[in-house]
Amino acid sequence: MTQFDKRNISMLIDLYEIMMANGYFVNHEENTEVIFDVFYRKNPDGAGFAIYAGLEQVLDYLENLHFDDDDIAYLRNLNCFNEDFLNVLKHYHFRGTVFSMPEGTIMYPYEPVMTVKAPLLDAQIIETAVLTQINHQSLIATKTQRIVNAAQGRSVADFGARRAHNVDSAVYGARAAYIGGATGSATLLAGKMFNIPASGTMAHSFVMFHKDEFTAFKLFAELYPDRSVLLVDTYDVLASGIPNAIRVAHEVLEPMGKRLQGIRIDSGDLAYLSKEARRMLDAAGLQDCKIVASNSLDEYTIRSLLDQGGCIDSFGVGERLITAKSDPVFGAVYKLAAVKENGVFVPKIKISENAEKITNPGEKRLWRLYNETGHAVADLITLADEEPDFTKPYAYIDPRKPWKRSSFVGCTGKQLQRPVMVDGKRVGRKYSLDEIRSYVAYQLKNEIWPEEQRFENPHHHFLDMSPAYYQMKMDLLEKAQNFR
Amino acid sequence: MTQFDKRNISMLIDLYEIMMANGYFVNHEENTEVIFDVFYRKNPDGAGFAIYAGLEQVLDYLENLHFDDDDIAYLRNLNCFNEDFLNVLKHYHFRGTVFSMPEGTIMYPYEPVMTVKAPLLDAQIIETAVLTQINHQSLIATKTQRIVNAAQGRSVADFGARRAHNVDSAVYGARAAYIGGATGSATLLAGKMFNIPASGTMAHSFVMFHKDEFTAFKLFAELYPDRSVLLVDTYDVLASGIPNAIRVAHEVLEPMGKRLQGIRIDSGDLAYLSKEARRMLDAAGLQDCKIVASNSLDEYTIRSLLDQGGCIDSFGVGERLITAKSDPVFGAVYKLAAVKENGVFVPKIKISENAEKITNPGEKRLWRLYNETGHAVADLITLADEEPDFTKPYAYIDPRKPWKRSSFVGCTGKQLQRPVMVDGKRVGRKYSLDEIRSYVAYQLKNEIWPEEQRFENPHHHFLDMSPAYYQMKMDLLEKAQNFR
Repeated sequence: MTQFDKRNISMLIDLYEIMMANGYFVNHEENTEVIFDVFYRKNPDGAGFAIYAGLEQVLDYLENLHFDDDDIAYLRNLNCFNEDFLNVLKHYHFRGTVFSMPEGTIMYPYEPVMTVKAPLLDAQIIETAVLTQINHQSLIATKTQRIVNAAQGRSVADFGARRAHNVDSAVYGARAAYIGGATGSATLLAGKMFNIPASGTMAHSFVMFHKDEFTAFKLFAELYPDRSVLLVDTYDVLASGIPNAIRVAHEVLEPMGKRLQGIRIDSGDLAYLSKEARRMLDAAGLQDCKIVASNSLDEYTIRSLLDQGGCIDSFGVGERLITAKSDPVFGAVYKLAAVKENGVFVPKIKISENAEKITNPGEKRLWRLYNETGHAVADLITLADEEPDFTKPYAYIDPRKPWKRSSFVGCTGKQLQRPVMVDGKRVGRKYSLDEIRSYVAYQLKNEIWPEEQRFENPHHHFLDMSPAYYQMKMDLLEKAQNFR
Repeated sequence: MTQFDKRNISMLIDLYEIMMANGYFVNHEENTEVIFDVFYRKNPDGAGFAIYAGLEQVLDYLENLHFDDDDIAYLRNLNCFNEDFLNVLKHYHFRGTVFSMPEGTIMYPYEPVMTVKAPLLDAQIIETAVLTQINHQSLIATKTQRIVNAAQGRSVADFGARRAHNVDSAVYGARAAYIGGATGSATLLAGKMFNIPASGTMAHSFVMFHKDEFTAFKLFAELYPDRSVLLVDTYDVLASGIPNAIRVAHEVLEPMGKRLQGIRIDSGDLAYLSKEARRMLDAAGLQDCKIVASNSLDEYTIRSLLDQGGCIDSFGVGERLITAKSDPVFGAVYKLAAVKENGVFVPKIKISENAEKITNPGEKRLWRLYNETGHAVADLITLADEEPDFTKPYAYIDPRKPWKRSSFVGCTGKQLQRPVMVDGKRVGRKYSLDEIRSYVAYQLKNEIWPEEQRFENPHHHFLDMSPAYYQMKMDLLEKAQNFR
């Protein structure tokens, strides 16, 4: 961990969590085993899926969770906590077991992406820090993948730090963007912490500072011949920027045996300017010089630029990526699913005035089902002790059409969650950021239907239930009607 | 500073900034004095103004700016920096002078809110960390003020941490929300770091965990009689939640000599439910019991709830506040304004393919002009050496209508920027968070026209120029046309 990571974020707790935890403690309920699920309800931007990110930081947080003396002093000052409870916090470390999808898994609404099985105290106080980190990184990974998708194989780099929602948002946002398919980030703190390729050129101030544009370009090219991407829109792209860049290519770089790497356009009509720039560069024998575009881009502007035949080789994407501007809230929630009573986990359901807020109760298993071509045809929730046999036709329930009789035929099934922490200790292999990024790309190429990857009106992925699980949920809903 | 603050964020630098800095160093330009202005171009949400926040954290950052050995090692590994330059960074501390509006100042587009006068090296490498912090906190303070405005005197608490863009966004977002008028935050880390009042009740899981709703309410009320705000929508607000809350008020709290503090509704039709709840509570003699509403609120839903006669005393506002969902990008920029040549600051202008990206050049002064009633009638940019005399009619130029002859008559003028750091050391009084918050409220009550505070189509605040400043800018634009 770098110095940046060493901070203690254990106090990222909502007051109500610790008030409840204290309540459980006073009532001798704090060691009751419970199960909480993390899930979300809606894909951002009307998309067909989302990308699960932030797990690594959640596990770091859980492993390091502790309360410093000044944390305890602050809590004591709130004048509502039992002193014995504060003493427990003082010596506290996380004791729970965590099941999770691997980071980078393509995920869908209402399925448990992470499940925490822990004593009630432990399960209660981690809610905010778990959600904040998963919500943020999943949001940015998901948004970035849309932008990368629109770029159709061209590279997309994160240029967003200055418009990020503070430092973490820039740094962990860059990590999430890389997971989502960005090729690099301009943010060096992210590059340093996560070994993300650093990306950058020059600013307008560099051009303005020097006596003229050519002088600025010349200086930059002499110093960074292998990173010679020149910003051409400080004065006038076509009348000044491109001609000066061409002159530098011929007069400065070629005598060094180097080629001009690229030009960047950061304002104006990027479709028109890039086409004209391409024509001028080609005419000057600079067919290999790349054109980089930036300026408030997102998946829609990139698609439009390419539809217009814009000659752009790579995109620097800032504010709309790092803030997920079009839909900046990722709403994963953390809900009680079961409570251990007399040695068994008894399922709990939350009903609500809003139907979409009703939870999937109980201890459960989540499966992804693949057809013969390896495509994911549906996800399936079963009871925890069910061992479905997919070698035979498997009858399931679509909870949106429970009257319909359907079966999976010729499918293979894979459990999506695996243990990542047992009794507070990490277990299982730790994946590198590049492995996580490759896993995302692998799924999108091989497993996820292209129809789910459309920008507009994507195909809705099925989340089905085993008949036994569905029946348990219905029984619980029935019971809840009479239980107040 | 708490442990949380101690991290080193000096590497929150875009690669291009440090590439340029190295270029300046190699070219012996790194100690040339320059002036950079921080300004923004557009109020979020079409509002009439924004609130300047984040200064305190920027000054902390500048005072502590240094590069650790592992930072230098990372930079060296990028293989493009001069070793002497890296050695300078190793022993680096910030040497610049900073002028700024006081934190909490009502600000308007295109005016310099902060000005950095520093050696080029120093000015260049701070760009990202300055902007990220000012952009984020100004965004959230501004958004929160809109929500507080809609609540018409009712309290608004930040409940947003779990949907924030990572930890900083929750913590500094809570700080900014408090500046913008929130009465508190649910986030204890923010409460601890900034002494923001902590706000919180209970979650649905607390109700679900216990044998029934009444048992859960009873436990909570016994434990927290002075914070007894009960969440009434786990099962059914009107059929179960309110009756159980009333029973707890009578059977548990009243025998203790206590009153039920409040109930919270987190789902369903908040207008209808709150009115029914009010009726039921009043009928039970609980006229003093407050009704708290939450669930994806913002300024528009709050206005609508109050328009419908919703009986709500306070609002818990989460995701739409902490992400500034309706307009999540605050676009402050950091632009070169002047370069010292032969002992004088020579103004620099950035022209652009996009007219709105043209900068206000040069060293300058920013004034706010007040009429006899103390209302801010306009802001005014003058040359740095102008001493305008407002006791006589003062002729100015409105740059959007430069042909118009107008004068300020009977106004007083106040310079908005003051030195906050001289040669790398903080100067001037440090304002407490409560002072900053009060300053915002004072300006909105006494200085800023109500017409500028409208949600829709607010009055546009004037940013005028002295004739001499306007002429300088026009001359520079003229010259730039012929200068490539």
